[in-house]
Amino acid sequence: MNKMVFAFHEGNKDMKDILGGKGANLAEMTNVGLPVPPGFTITTAACKQFFAEGEKITAPIQSQIEEAIKALELKTQKTLGDPANPLLLSVRSGSVFSMPGMMDTILNLGLNDDTAAGLIRLSGDERFVLDSYRRFIQMFSDVVLGIEHYHFESIIQRQKQAKGIQNDIEMTAADWRLVVEAFKKLVLSKTKEPFPQDPKMQLQKAIIAVFSSWNNQRAKVYRKINRISDDLGTAVNIQMMVFGNLGNDSGTGVAFTRNPSTGEKKLYGEYLINAQGEDVVAGIRTPQAINQLQEQMPHIYQEFIQISSRLENHYRDMQDIEFTVEKGKLYILQTRNGKRTAQAGVKIAVNMVEEGILSREDAIKRIDPDQLDQLLHRRIDTNVSLTVLAKGLPASPGAASGKIVFHADDAEKWSQAGVDVILVRPETTPEDIHGILAAQGILTSRGGMTSHAAVVARGMGKACICGCEELKIDLKKKEIQVQNQLLKEGDLISIDGSTGRVITGQVPLMDPELSIEFKQLLEWADELRTLKIRTNADNPEDSKKAREFGAEGIGLCRTEHMFMEAKRIPIVQQMILAESLEERKLSLNQLLPMQTEDFKGIFHAMNGLPVTIRLLDPPLHEFLPNMDELLIEVTKLNMAQDVDEKLRAEKETLLRKVKALHEMNPMLGHRGCRLGLMYPEIYQMQVEAIFMAAREVIASGVEVQPEIMIPLVGHVNELAQMKQLVVDIANKMQQKSDIPVSYTVGTMIELPRAALTADQIANEADFFSFGTNDLTQTTFGYSRDDAEGKFLHAYVDQKILSDNPFITIDVEGVGALVQMGVEKGQQTKPHLKTGICGEHGGEKRSIQFCHQIGLDYVSCSPFRVPIARLAAAQAAIASN
Amino acid sequence: MNKMVFAFHEGNKDMKDILGGKGANLAEMTNVGLPVPPGFTITTAACKQFFAEGEKITAPIQSQIEEAIKALELKTQKTLGDPANPLLLSVRSGSVFSMPGMMDTILNLGLNDDTAAGLIRLSGDERFVLDSYRRFIQMFSDVVLGIEHYHFESIIQRQKQAKGIQNDIEMTAADWRLVVEAFKKLVLSKTKEPFPQDPKMQLQKAIIAVFSSWNNQRAKVYRKINRISDDLGTAVNIQMMVFGNLGNDSGTGVAFTRNPSTGEKKLYGEYLINAQGEDVVAGIRTPQAINQLQEQMPHIYQEFIQISSRLENHYRDMQDIEFTVEKGKLYILQTRNGKRTAQAGVKIAVNMVEEGILSREDAIKRIDPDQLDQLLHRRIDTNVSLTVLAKGLPASPGAASGKIVFHADDAEKWSQAGVDVILVRPETTPEDIHGILAAQGILTSRGGMTSHAAVVARGMGKACICGCEELKIDLKKKEIQVQNQLLKEGDLISIDGSTGRVITGQVPLMDPELSIEFKQLLEWADELRTLKIRTNADNPEDSKKAREFGAEGIGLCRTEHMFMEAKRIPIVQQMILAESLEERKLSLNQLLPMQTEDFKGIFHAMNGLPVTIRLLDPPLHEFLPNMDELLIEVTKLNMAQDVDEKLRAEKETLLRKVKALHEMNPMLGHRGCRLGLMYPEIYQMQVEAIFMAAREVIASGVEVQPEIMIPLVGHVNELAQMKQLVVDIANKMQQKSDIPVSYTVGTMIELPRAALTADQIANEADFFSFGTNDLTQTTFGYSRDDAEGKFLHAYVDQKILSDNPFITIDVEGVGALVQMGVEKGQQTKPHLKTGICGEHGGEKRSIQFCHQIGLDYVSCSPFRVPIARLAAAQAAIASN
Repeated sequence: MNKMVFAFHEGNKDMKDILGGKGANLAEMTNVGLPVPPGFTITTAACKQFFAEGEKITAPIQSQIEEAIKALELKTQKTLGDPANPLLLSVRSGSVFSMPGMMDTILNLGLNDDTAAGLIRLSGDERFVLDSYRRFIQMFSDVVLGIEHYHFESIIQRQKQAKGIQNDIEMTAADWRLVVEAFKKLVLSKTKEPFPQDPKMQLQKAIIAVFSSWNNQRAKVYRKINRISDDLGTAVNIQMMVFGNLGNDSGTGVAFTRNPSTGEKKLYGEYLINAQGEDVVAGIRTPQAINQLQEQMPHIYQEFIQISSRLENHYRDMQDIEFTVEKGKLYILQTRNGKRTAQAGVKIAVNMVEEGILSREDAIKRIDPDQLDQLLHRRIDTNVSLTVLAKGLPASPGAASGKIVFHADDAEKWSQAGVDVILVRPETTPEDIHGILAAQGILTSRGGMTSHAAVVARGMGKACICGCEELKIDLKKKEIQVQNQLLKEGDLISIDGSTGRVITGQVPLMDPELSIEFKQLLEWADELRTLKIRTNADNPEDSKKAREFGAEGIGLCRTEHMFMEAKRIPIVQQMILAESLEERKLSLNQLLPMQTEDFKGIFHAMNGLPVTIRLLDPPLHEFLPNMDELLIEVTKLNMAQDVDEKLRAEKETLLRKVKALHEMNPMLGHRGCRLGLMYPEIYQMQVEAIFMAAREVIASGVEVQPEIMIPLVGHVNELAQMKQLVVDIANKMQQKSDIPVSYTVGTMIELPRAALTADQIANEADFFSFGTNDLTQTTFGYSRDDAEGKFLHAYVDQKILSDNPFITIDVEGVGALVQMGVEKGQQTKPHLKTGICGEHGGEKRSIQFCHQIGLDYVSCSPFRVPIARLAAAQAAIASN
Repeated sequence: MNKMVFAFHEGNKDMKDILGGKGANLAEMTNVGLPVPPGFTITTAACKQFFAEGEKITAPIQSQIEEAIKALELKTQKTLGDPANPLLLSVRSGSVFSMPGMMDTILNLGLNDDTAAGLIRLSGDERFVLDSYRRFIQMFSDVVLGIEHYHFESIIQRQKQAKGIQNDIEMTAADWRLVVEAFKKLVLSKTKEPFPQDPKMQLQKAIIAVFSSWNNQRAKVYRKINRISDDLGTAVNIQMMVFGNLGNDSGTGVAFTRNPSTGEKKLYGEYLINAQGEDVVAGIRTPQAINQLQEQMPHIYQEFIQISSRLENHYRDMQDIEFTVEKGKLYILQTRNGKRTAQAGVKIAVNMVEEGILSREDAIKRIDPDQLDQLLHRRIDTNVSLTVLAKGLPASPGAASGKIVFHADDAEKWSQAGVDVILVRPETTPEDIHGILAAQGILTSRGGMTSHAAVVARGMGKACICGCEELKIDLKKKEIQVQNQLLKEGDLISIDGSTGRVITGQVPLMDPELSIEFKQLLEWADELRTLKIRTNADNPEDSKKAREFGAEGIGLCRTEHMFMEAKRIPIVQQMILAESLEERKLSLNQLLPMQTEDFKGIFHAMNGLPVTIRLLDPPLHEFLPNMDELLIEVTKLNMAQDVDEKLRAEKETLLRKVKALHEMNPMLGHRGCRLGLMYPEIYQMQVEAIFMAAREVIASGVEVQPEIMIPLVGHVNELAQMKQLVVDIANKMQQKSDIPVSYTVGTMIELPRAALTADQIANEADFFSFGTNDLTQTTFGYSRDDAEGKFLHAYVDQKILSDNPFITIDVEGVGALVQMGVEKGQQTKPHLKTGICGEHGGEKRSIQFCHQIGLDYVSCSPFRVPIARLAAAQAAIASN
């Protein structure tokens, strides 16, 4: 039998895999001499065996637990169940990766009628003991016996009402005794058995419950969101209780070594006098800021400051520390790397490099590129004056607007229907996690910066305001009273999680700016990465923004967006509906100067950097009116009386033409170079515009490198013909001018056949740009438009697919084709330039793949350029 | 300078590549001592150089031609342009692959006013000389000067009318002299220059014209149909004229050594007394059958019989021979392997094996599997009595029905609009080839079995009746007079090319039966092939037919066709529109006994052979009403007054549901195993039906091997789940019965990702069936529904693609994926069974590919099974 139970002094911080994060850190702190209440950890291996045995604890594990309890009794000089000197325990989950609040915890275990009486004798504090006992009954009943929380809460509420009391702290020993008796009756009536009095049985049931909580619904959801394997299991930490509820020289708190919202290097946290840990986290009482402890308990504060600093240096990361003060003595109950906002994460990492704690590579490795996304979101325009409705704690930065909902289920439902929502609650609990995920932002009237809502929102990068006590929330009526105003479900509000401001209605947003630390981090990333980062941009504004963010060129300039502009669409439609080549050319001649202006603007913005321009790609019917609407319109015209005959005839003609262009599967239809081959005059106009624009801007001193890209090539002959078209126009244009324009011609590789025959295609291409959006559609045979609504989400939920392949590149299938394309292409042309321009170009795992297979660049939307710079550096570090 | 001109005695039959077919055979015949008029061949290499030089004959080639002429003058003792003893020449094209009638020919070259006068003196036959001269002017003017045929014809017509003459043969020397003078005037007025009198200039211009005719429109079309490369070029054969128009002891004819329509071993051909070759082929006079020559010229007939037999043995194939008799002496002007119907081809090949001329392998290699298609078409039901309108020559077998059209352009136009047509003409010319291609069948009132219409129709496998002289065709009025009936354009007729019967209206058709020779050939093929042949069949009738044709199992039984039956579709729709699982199961329970009956019938038919059943594949909306029609209906209901409110509500609900199921790209949508995963109850019902049916038929003594196939798998997890579903049902069914059913579970490989990850998928599969229809769609990114109408035909025409990839497998792209799938699959499971079930399974070049990469079987439609058997044998022979 392997060792399945470790006393704290037997472990260390590197044993997370078997002790879980909490257990490993408790062991580490014990060994470095910090004041940790003694205890032991049951390993994750024991949890796996528990599930393997059909949710049973085997005899060998049971006997290891019993031995550990004996050793703990010896150490603490207390005995489990002994009324003379009872050992009370906390039983807490602790998995390999932090899953705060997702699994179960039981405090004060070991209390029963006898030990409670004994403890009253021993401590002389009846109120404390009964407070602890009622807490224990409530937690144990919730976690082990499945009796819901609110039954107990309403008993407490009734007692408070009877006594006219507002706060728990005003409850007397006699009050708690009545509550305990009522609790025990409740348990008897619900379970048909009295509340279990045997502490050993309590312990065994508690361990089983914590193991089982690994598979509760919210833990599963959390793991899915955070990509944590379902196979890891949780450890169980069993530790001697220390009591923050032993009077006014006792208390409990949580603190971060730096500000988890901004990253500022300043102790940041909260505490409550005469309370147990869950009171702080659950947000039931709004706690005091940690700096007030300096006045209330100056020695404790000094000691805590020292320990904090020691822990941060020891772990080389910002720490999230739980502590309890029992009658003037400080205990550390947990430390872990603290969750933080992206902004804080960046600032902390960069500061720690400056402080000599971290290397630059470590700092870069530490930031999750996905999290940076929130720094690149638009925020409330600071130049606009707003009417602020209320102010709460700025718990998670960012701005969000949405309609008010009051329940997590509603948040999910509305959001699935496409409505942006703000979830408003007095406080949130782990049961609300799906609603937080669905909402744009979270607003609570109770709880502090370390409350559940705040921690979860920061983890997800959602805007969040906590403890906004001005709001009087009525969940039943679905209303908020604030400053004589009444807000109802569905009303539009905005929240600013960076300042804590609640604002009515929608607010204007502005583009983000990068902080000094963020810029610094990205400069370090640039020194390490080998992959170039380009951007997908179709207009000068986006091009400029991307360049500010560090883009090194345009990897994809889609010309169809230019065709969609309101002024142009009638001309584009004329062009499409033309009955003859001459007629079509007339329209194209009108479009030529407009396209030329488009390209001039982009060339100016990207002065000196390469610009890859993709010629027209979508099927022509995308520019025409919707066929279904037209069908209805014509049907109505045909039925109506007194109709303008000319209008009817026109609409019928239009419908006939739209029908002629209609396609069963437009994704696989007449688009890309297939258009260029059938209507060469369209591509000719576009190429002419590129060269006219290039010539003009070169004349004004701008450096231009157009890379002309032919879309949807599946056979080398398609590219050969289209390349010839480009070369012919280029030659014609060059003859007319003495300004030479140097250019290249390449292709998208976005069809399986293109990748499979890349050796042939490379003969005609100066570069390959992998269009992995379309390549994913054809390789899987998924229409993205249809799949995501119909089965793809279910596929990911049911783990048929590990990821949505439109978000993270499918390495085995699509990736194999990309790799094949690169290898075959470079067989023909060793220096063929290669890049990727699908959405995968801005996603960290896909970027890592692109680095591994040796692409020259990735191209992504302007706002993902910084993310790509960081991810590219991480990929380079990983491959060293 | 390479040798670009070869005298006939310098070549042989193996030099086709440079001498062309005609030139090589003229050389061969010269060398074996047959009576061939002397001459020489200008090579295909010279033709290529001619095009490379911008349609110019270079000086070195020109001088080789001049030397060859001198040698010919020496040999014949005649001199080009010498009025005392003029050498007259035929100038004929001759390409590597036979392209009968597609390129140009000029006879009687060397005639001018002086040589004509000299020849009259020499021959004493003024009428012959002037007849030859008028022929020369007409052909030269048509081919070289571009003056259209009908101008000359109308001059002859006028002269005939003036003299009250019906036939050319009645024209006197004086008549022809007037015609010649009129011809020369016509040329002067059209070209502003007199008809060229210099024989050397005539020759040079004629050579250039023949070279150039390689690229005329009809030659290009012919090459495209027959897959002949455009790069080969044509040789030019220049030969001393011999004259069939020198009186009644002269004549000209064409004969096949066997019957090209039936394959019967009997000389078969036609001749005309006192005529030149083109008179026979052009169908201007209906010629006499060859056996009449026995009476008219018994010695010539005997000699010809002997030569025919010698040529057939020499070439080991049926010969198509052109001959001329000049004043009682027989000349052979051409021999070539004769074009034949599929029926004749098979009979000749099998007979030649029996005669000891060919080996079995040679016989099999000689048959083009594509041509067999016509033997497998339905023909006129022999049990039905028909009203026969007229009878002509049975020129090309097969039955066809269609609307009458009178012009090739109309045939093409109507056919493109989806109308079946019969092209009816007095005679056809090479200009009509696009119309013949477009028509279902050809009917002419003039010309014999070797006329243009007959030869071309047999080559294309189209039904054709020639020389149906009862028909009085009026091309201007677009009418036919026959037996007091008047038929007009657009009237429906049927023709039976096997018997020569013309029938009004549509006729009932019956399934084909295989001839004794065909069966013999296929038995030989079965001994040679290693590839198994299965069939795609969804019902007992098709299964039986396929088995008769030699299918060795069902490779694809599509279950969706069973869902489409009229009785079932309402139940299927109920199932789809069900609001709950329970409701859906109610409908499925109704379908279960029906599906069970389907499978029982098929299992009975295939007793002892494997049956691969594919579970439901198409998206569910295919079973619902068309959305556009429903949109119009609902719009109308909404506008109308006094409408049944219940009906309106029902239709609106239906529309809403149809819209919910509607997909942007159904090809890439919610279908295949994606349905099975989201609605497992549908697949469960189908699997249950398979096992119920198997159990019942096994009980009645039938041997059953169901192979259950999961469609559209892209990831191994999809197959794993669906396989588990099958196994679960199988186990449940087995428990209920003591009749064990052995079965396998496999998958379609029809998505690129499936081929790319075939090693993983093979872990869950007993067999792979490559669905190359869908695989072609996704690999190319072509929606077949859209591509064929919008750009695919243009792609093939413009040679962007060498073939339509839906017809012939694209070896480089789709084929590479199939090969990868086989290799990766067999890495995991060395004995994994592999097959193909797309339409490629019945196409010869695709079958060859399947053999090469080692598939176990191909599966095709029942009527293509014999074709596949032959093609598989050819593939096996080719790879030895």
